[in-house]
Amino acid sequence: MREVAVIGTGITKFGELWDKSIKDIFVEAALKAIDDASIDHIDSIYVGAMSGGLFVGQEHLGAVMADYLGMAPVPATRVESACASGGMSFKQAYLDVASGNSEIVLAGGVEKMNDGADVTAALASAADQEYEVYNGITFPGLYAMIANAHMYEYKTTREQIAAVAVKNHKNGSNNPNAQFRNQITIEQVLNSSLVADPLRLLDCSPVTDGAAAVILCSMDVAKKLSKNFAKIIASTQASDSIALYQRKSFTTLNAVTKAADLAYKLTGLKPSDIDFAEVHDCFTIAEIVVFEDLGFCEKGFGGSAVVEGMTSLDGKIPINTSGGLKSKGHPVGATGIAQIIELSEQLTGKAGKRQVKNARIGLAQNMGGSGASCTINILEAV
Amino acid sequence: MREVAVIGTGITKFGELWDKSIKDIFVEAALKAIDDASIDHIDSIYVGAMSGGLFVGQEHLGAVMADYLGMAPVPATRVESACASGGMSFKQAYLDVASGNSEIVLAGGVEKMNDGADVTAALASAADQEYEVYNGITFPGLYAMIANAHMYEYKTTREQIAAVAVKNHKNGSNNPNAQFRNQITIEQVLNSSLVADPLRLLDCSPVTDGAAAVILCSMDVAKKLSKNFAKIIASTQASDSIALYQRKSFTTLNAVTKAADLAYKLTGLKPSDIDFAEVHDCFTIAEIVVFEDLGFCEKGFGGSAVVEGMTSLDGKIPINTSGGLKSKGHPVGATGIAQIIELSEQLTGKAGKRQVKNARIGLAQNMGGSGASCTINILEAV
Repeated sequence: MREVAVIGTGITKFGELWDKSIKDIFVEAALKAIDDASIDHIDSIYVGAMSGGLFVGQEHLGAVMADYLGMAPVPATRVESACASGGMSFKQAYLDVASGNSEIVLAGGVEKMNDGADVTAALASAADQEYEVYNGITFPGLYAMIANAHMYEYKTTREQIAAVAVKNHKNGSNNPNAQFRNQITIEQVLNSSLVADPLRLLDCSPVTDGAAAVILCSMDVAKKLSKNFAKIIASTQASDSIALYQRKSFTTLNAVTKAADLAYKLTGLKPSDIDFAEVHDCFTIAEIVVFEDLGFCEKGFGGSAVVEGMTSLDGKIPINTSGGLKSKGHPVGATGIAQIIELSEQLTGKAGKRQVKNARIGLAQNMGGSGASCTINILEAV
Repeated sequence: MREVAVIGTGITKFGELWDKSIKDIFVEAALKAIDDASIDHIDSIYVGAMSGGLFVGQEHLGAVMADYLGMAPVPATRVESACASGGMSFKQAYLDVASGNSEIVLAGGVEKMNDGADVTAALASAADQEYEVYNGITFPGLYAMIANAHMYEYKTTREQIAAVAVKNHKNGSNNPNAQFRNQITIEQVLNSSLVADPLRLLDCSPVTDGAAAVILCSMDVAKKLSKNFAKIIASTQASDSIALYQRKSFTTLNAVTKAADLAYKLTGLKPSDIDFAEVHDCFTIAEIVVFEDLGFCEKGFGGSAVVEGMTSLDGKIPINTSGGLKSKGHPVGATGIAQIIELSEQLTGKAGKRQVKNARIGLAQNMGGSGASCTINILEAV
């Protein structure tokens, strides 16, 4: 496989975009990415989206977006893996260029969640319908069980979990595209409405409309077009049982460890070689579990790592400098691409007040459901 | 890109499978394909499905199927392009092997349409929600407009269109997995219930449950495992406007011509070099339009080609020897893979009473919506 670069990015404001359609926001992000990359054509388009059907009654989103971009007959493919749809879109775009099939590919992600749909029910279609959802559980409940197990097994405290939200809102306050730019306190998290014990409102990522797009190309094309870009040094993926109850442990996400182990093996990197990471904090507890599963600390110490500042912007390994899903927002199909955009901005020194010093290698971890699917992408500054 | 082979196939009975779930049927087809290929592992799984959300309330179908196959943590990705989801799943699996990322990949497709969902509304999510569906049109109406235009422009007759259904039911009568194995007459088609003028019930493919899977691998692996297999010599794809009204012509499908032109260019083949083809006859008129757009006859002569026997099993270029979508059934996400299976069976001499004599090169054309997306795959006997 040949090397692949990321040479352009585009993203919409994340939030409640009542005056825009799913097509409007995808096209906005895609055109920004095309402008940013200064390219005059695209060979192929990938669209990550979780449920165009349940959220807005529109499937066939690859063709829809190619059409509304004015780019038909360019090949366009929609990729879905619940909340990891963006990461999977990026992975397929990577393979398309790495194989030599395409030179320049647009990988996008989009979700329009605020359009009148029953969002909790639509999101629950990422869990096991027959054995989980039918029995009444949805994602806040599933992640609450993970949180309870982690608190029981590792003495993780409610305050440590809340500290994830506080850190991510602080980072997000410096992200102009974030849905929530207000800073919050531990007390505010602990006093917010109970959603699924122990998780409270400010432990949960919000319901978000948004789109994100990046341009991938071969290294030859990248070198002609740009002096300052990032290259993809690993793009891996793994799966796990769809239902939480089938796992040996609630506090280790096998899809994360498997995809990460492969990415480290392919690159020869250790976790300590990663300068910063975007991880899938759909709920605060998820960031703690994933941080541990990526090997950034010993199992059980993810909570204290946050409180001690290890994951802060100026810490040993800054996590979710974008604000993460918690503060930036979580338009599910777009999230994986938005993570790649944060990596790209950090690695090219364009992250402004969120800039990580000496950022050379960044990792993005995107997952679906309660971790039944996971992508890991590692990018390096060129 | 390296060469890729198809070394195993598996398919369920197509029909109303009320006693089986979407997971049951996918696993059945996948295990048959794995058995058929005599392989002991898989590197990656692709699942083509149009709308797990709207049909059965289950998205995240890549991870779901990997799990129910007992294959987690194998990477699993769902690909969607409405009724071309199967063809797209195959294309992404092809790129995965061609790139060198994987050695052995399972490409499957599935749809469970008989599970209580509003099927016509769910299928309509493949059309333009805002400008088509909102105004009351669904697919029978869209294809009826194509039929009317073709009858007006080319003097195509109602009887010629009906002859497609008659031929495909005749072929399907020899396919043990077909939903409808009864033969029908022109008169029966012309006297069946009117659905959308001029299309009648027997012009329409049915609502079907079914799954199909194939195993792709590198040529090195194929040569070790099998003496009798097919290789993929082109896998192309194109898009068109999502809405029919935006096209210059209703009687030419640009996504078909563009994808086919590229496939012919890549292989150096002419349409006359193709020995047989599976094409997307979601409605009878579609087979006629696609037959013309693939270059098998001059534009406007697709209707007479059927009546004159050119597309019959013993004709110059047999079309839909499997029975096509009309007789075999059309579980939308599975259809593109089922087409590949028919190609594979014909090219390895396993098609029984449907066998095309001296079949060396077969083409599969799978499309989404009213032709807004199209895949072309050309396979050659080895």
